[in-house]
Amino acid sequence: MHKVVINPDIDPLEENRHQAEANRARLREHGAMAVDILGSIGSGKTALVALLGERLRARGKGVVAIVGDVAGDDDCRRLVEAGIPTANVNTGKECHLDAHYVEHALDELDLEGADVVFIENVGNLVCPADFALGAEKRIVVISITEGDDMVRKHPMIFAETDAAVLNKIDLAPFMDASVDRILSDYSKVNPHGRIFVTSARRGDGLDDLTDFILDE
Amino acid sequence: MHKVVINPDIDPLEENRHQAEANRARLREHGAMAVDILGSIGSGKTALVALLGERLRARGKGVVAIVGDVAGDDDCRRLVEAGIPTANVNTGKECHLDAHYVEHALDELDLEGADVVFIENVGNLVCPADFALGAEKRIVVISITEGDDMVRKHPMIFAETDAAVLNKIDLAPFMDASVDRILSDYSKVNPHGRIFVTSARRGDGLDDLTDFILDE
Repeated sequence: MHKVVINPDIDPLEENRHQAEANRARLREHGAMAVDILGSIGSGKTALVALLGERLRARGKGVVAIVGDVAGDDDCRRLVEAGIPTANVNTGKECHLDAHYVEHALDELDLEGADVVFIENVGNLVCPADFALGAEKRIVVISITEGDDMVRKHPMIFAETDAAVLNKIDLAPFMDASVDRILSDYSKVNPHGRIFVTSARRGDGLDDLTDFILDE
Repeated sequence: MHKVVINPDIDPLEENRHQAEANRARLREHGAMAVDILGSIGSGKTALVALLGERLRARGKGVVAIVGDVAGDDDCRRLVEAGIPTANVNTGKECHLDAHYVEHALDELDLEGADVVFIENVGNLVCPADFALGAEKRIVVISITEGDDMVRKHPMIFAETDAAVLNKIDLAPFMDASVDRILSDYSKVNPHGRIFVTSARRGDGLDDLTDFILDE
């Protein structure tokens, strides 16, 4: 949904950038860093966050999360069940989180002992890319079940994030989608980005992704 | 991406509604009707349109299409290969089509002999719902591979469309997702809506969906 801004002197993206910087500074004061998880709906973002949380805790890291959805608290409940203290954000008609939503969600979380704050955005490959939230790393998640044209159709979000995850790779044998094509499209739009091929179900690629998150 | 509107006297949704009415009237003059295909990215919208086009042509109907994507012309090329004259719309940073995009796309199409104009929207379960395009029917497509919480997370788009399609049902045996839960959630948010369970690959449900499109 598009916001109607009646004061032309205020640039909402600029305002958002200031708040994102404030979020980042606040987290650093607590010795924590946020990791923004963007991606298409149903790509497995929540399952990945739950499994990454498990691996990070096994390495002695404290993990909390913020999840954004238009409606409902399904993802929040799943993360809480997975042992991750989580703040739920419902955006109503908005198609993405912004830094103000994150500011308020951080108020709800106990940041003492938190090292990593996952911020799971609304499932959408367009709008979330434009809104910085204060994360140190931004990761975009897609699933092989969506076909092999995702990168070509949404070059922007892949160019503007630090890494991509191609998830549900265990379903590749049942799909008519080329993994090579996705990898090749990705290397064109983001030559310096990392891409991880994962299966939340089988655990493929999750240790490498955990390393990437912890890498300074 | 959010538009910044600096003239508060113009309501962009209201303007869009007027243009949508004009599109509808223009199509009716040609004896054609538009069918809006909304849905999540990678849910199989293009494959469904190609197969529905085949079935409609077998029933003597002329079919053309408009496809919207942020970037690229993959879907357009697939529909043209499937024998459907198609106009491609790239929205740049916009997350949905609007009625003006459709107006210009209609200029590119030969509407003589066209009975059905499929309008495949940008893949996204939030923003496209708000923008009428001039269609007589609006159908939202999701895939079983996205999990079984899609309706609960996006009640609005399911409430505001005439029918829903649960696609890729051939992959259900490999997923931990409940079809019953989706059907039950749907009947709550849209008690008068129809839901079709389909497999573009196997052909399940496509004849019923074709009947629905042609039903007055």
